[in-house]
Amino acid sequence: MKIGIIGSGVVAQTLGAKLIELGHDVVLGTRDPAKLDEKKGMAGPLREWIAKTGKKGKVATFQEAAAHGDLLFNATNGQASVEALKLAAADKVGTKVLIDTGNELDVRKGMPPGALASQSNCLGERIQAAFPNLKVVKSLNTIGAPVMVAPQALAGGEHTVFVSGNDTAAKAAAAELLKSFGWKDVLDLGDISSARGPEMYMAMWLRLWGATGTGMLNIKVVR
Amino acid sequence: MKIGIIGSGVVAQTLGAKLIELGHDVVLGTRDPAKLDEKKGMAGPLREWIAKTGKKGKVATFQEAAAHGDLLFNATNGQASVEALKLAAADKVGTKVLIDTGNELDVRKGMPPGALASQSNCLGERIQAAFPNLKVVKSLNTIGAPVMVAPQALAGGEHTVFVSGNDTAAKAAAAELLKSFGWKDVLDLGDISSARGPEMYMAMWLRLWGATGTGMLNIKVVR
Repeated sequence: MKIGIIGSGVVAQTLGAKLIELGHDVVLGTRDPAKLDEKKGMAGPLREWIAKTGKKGKVATFQEAAAHGDLLFNATNGQASVEALKLAAADKVGTKVLIDTGNELDVRKGMPPGALASQSNCLGERIQAAFPNLKVVKSLNTIGAPVMVAPQALAGGEHTVFVSGNDTAAKAAAAELLKSFGWKDVLDLGDISSARGPEMYMAMWLRLWGATGTGMLNIKVVR
Repeated sequence: MKIGIIGSGVVAQTLGAKLIELGHDVVLGTRDPAKLDEKKGMAGPLREWIAKTGKKGKVATFQEAAAHGDLLFNATNGQASVEALKLAAADKVGTKVLIDTGNELDVRKGMPPGALASQSNCLGERIQAAFPNLKVVKSLNTIGAPVMVAPQALAGGEHTVFVSGNDTAAKAAAAELLKSFGWKDVLDLGDISSARGPEMYMAMWLRLWGATGTGMLNIKVVR
């Protein structure tokens, strides 16, 4: 599948590498694709990422990545996501599935960051409202990057990932990709307003991370 | 142990009955203890609760319950909790552990209710600030009442409950009570500010409840 990833940090690079490993044709979109040697937050420079993918990974502008993908990921910082998708001209790419992995975090007051999601501030809903042509599926925002693409590396994969979105077929497409990563328990929470749940959960994740000292963690929904 | 429960709804009645079963001396505090035949939200009238406890359960005012307990529970509606604790004169009971089980829910916009917790609105923190004499431990707010006192009824008890609070001994006392209910995995999240995590998680719980159709659910933290 042709996949465009908006973003170039640790989530984008991790998802991109895994999708390439699975045989997909991936373009990773970044603000300035000429800057291949700049460190990307907690992730390394994009030149290293390209090398790591056996030179199969491509780096382009946000707009080129959005045009390339039949399916898109938002893997930008949640506070910059709507602007990045505007720069990507995501309103002009027609009907495409966008898997939104973003969280809005406030790092100004030190660690742990504050999760800014609330009943009246949900990134997934804001993206869906700003880009009605996209079929937004909120997913993967409840897990650290290493676990996203290797759920079996933690407790044999016996834990849960979530999808929220208004379009059933888009959620099925997202779930299929998730299963190809190794996810066994993909729980459909409902329409895009249900993304408030996993986004507000980020406040819990950050405390779990602090309490356990590891980002290699997740929750299993027991029912 | 002498235990005072502030509140008389389903959480209060469920905790009270279990604590009595375990041999504790429980007083349940309610706004008007004379109204024993009034239905209490989703719970039955207090006269039925008293009968159910083999007449061991006592019903009194908020203030009498707070004075009675060596350990207290807040089991009121989160939006009414600070006021209820003021009515209970909880500032005048000296140093006591208060296990706060409350959630602030907005039911005005229909179902599912909105979880009103955020980075800047945490009930546990507000109670601790309003009553510095109490050693507040946030716990049990992430689970429906039937699971609170019978964790083993769900997946053999293989799931997680949380404690947050500033006082280590108070958290240990809370954990001991939780273990007597059957909890195996009691995770200490940190000081009372870490209650933001489980309180914001309530938004997720409400969506899980909606998606699975059952309140007999919880999360297991896999790490």
